[in-house]
Amino acid sequence: MAKLTQLIDNEVFRAYATYATIVLLKMMLMSLITAYFRITRKAFVNPEDTASYGKGESAKKYLRTDADVERVRRGHLNDLENIVPFLGIGLLYALSGPDLSTALLHFRIFVGARITHTFAYLIPLPQPARGIQCDTGSGFLLPVPGYVHGISDQDACQDIEDFLEK
Amino acid sequence: MAKLTQLIDNEVFRAYATYATIVLLKMMLMSLITAYFRITRKAFVNPEDTASYGKGESAKKYLRTDADVERVRRGHLNDLENIVPFLGIGLLYALSGPDLSTALLHFRIFVGARITHTFAYLIPLPQPARGIQCDTGSGFLLPVPGYVHGISDQDACQDIEDFLEK
Amino acid sequence: MAKLTQLIDNEVFRAYATYATIVLLKMMLMSLITAYFRITRKAFVNPEDTASYGKGESAKKYLRTDADVERVRRGHLNDLENIVPFLGIGLLYALSGPDLSTALLHFRIFVGARITHTFAYLIPLPQPARGIQCDTGSGFLLPVPGYVHGISDQDACQDIEDFLEK
Repeated sequence: MAKLTQLIDNEVFRAYATYATIVLLKMMLMSLITAYFRITRKAFVNPEDTASYGKGESAKKYLRTDADVERVRRGHLNDLENIVPFLGIGLLYALSGPDLSTALLHFRIFVGARITHTFAYLIPLPQPARGIQCDTGSGFLLPVPGYVHGISDQDACQDIEDFLEK
Repeated sequence: MAKLTQLIDNEVFRAYATYATIVLLKMMLMSLITAYFRITRKAFVNPEDTASYGKGESAKKYLRTDADVERVRRGHLNDLENIVPFLGIGLLYALSGPDLSTALLHFRIFVGARITHTFAYLIPLPQPARGIQCDTGSGFLLPVPGYVHGISDQDACQDIEDFLEK
Repeated sequence: MAKLTQLIDNEVFRAYATYATIVLLKMMLMSLITAYFRITRKAFVNPEDTASYGKGESAKKYLRTDADVERVRRGHLNDLENIVPFLGIGLLYALSGPDLSTALLHFRIFVGARITHTFAYLIPLPQPARGIQCDTGSGFLLPVPGYVHGISDQDACQDIEDFLEK
């Protein structure tokens, strides 16, 4: 166990663990937001979920898609697409023994960008607010040596290039 | 290599490795189930996949969505959304040196909840069976210190709150 | 830090880190491809994304789905479904102290299969090209002891069984 304790006592690794937990909890919060919107908007996708609202035809009308529910689900999927690379590359980055302040800066920028991205997506703020958060989050990857600059976690930033080039 | 061996010899870490592998294999099994339903229901999404069923118009009728296929795909996405946090938080939890029996309890509850969640989703059992599995799975996160209780892996449990409060 | 350096100096772990990074970058590239197709095909999903193309009704016509955009998004989701198991099982495999040449072989086959899978999906090549890449990628899991052979990362390989058995 001594070696495990040394790993967990490493400051960069502990910072990684903290921010990874924050961003994972934020991602799981999307499930509760989806649940909230599904219940308040009465928009379900599984027939068995509507059973408490009535039988037969009267329940069928709740089997529908709702714009707000779909928006939260897209935000959730976007989280998945960006946080999985963060977990993988961030772990390898933390194990490569970087400077603590540099690592903290990158972890905080990434997590901050994901949180503001969620707000920008859910409110929704007019573009390019969401796109900028995506691009800021991508800054996390720049320190990893040998990485091509342009390839970064711009998962749902499907339009930031468009806006930044204008 | 000595240090690596010590890491892999740690009992909690080995338990984490075992249960992470089980739950990942269960998730990959969803692909085979999707394949099975796509072939038996003849419901494909890519034109090139229907080539063996005929040419031109006769193949086009297989480009459709099927309720069972979509159900498996939702279960698969729900797995992803819940297992990614398990992998991340579970690894950090295992490295934090918890009690073995406590860790085993949490890993087993989480994995059991995911497996029964899949059965509840695919059969499908009437609600709140699926929701309860989601909530049980969320019990995994409770030991992690400082975690807000309510925020847990209730990804597709979009309606459990509704049922439990009644 | 000495122990961390020893972990990162382990050759199999370093190979895992390299190939995990490559495959994660490839996955993130899917975001840029999605962005490219969304902009060139003018097919958006969020109303705020179409603001630069016009106001009111003239912008609404860009809120549509496009076959190419959906194809890239399916490829992205398939990446997620396969790369998450790779990250988890691959890490545990690397920590179990396997032979370097065996590990390299498996990592390379998996990464190569994912890259060719993407090409086969996006071009698209006629089946069974994509299916074969899925099956090849699944070869990665075979060395992990005790694994059931047939259960492997055939996530979107919804039809390979069909083709191989003919």
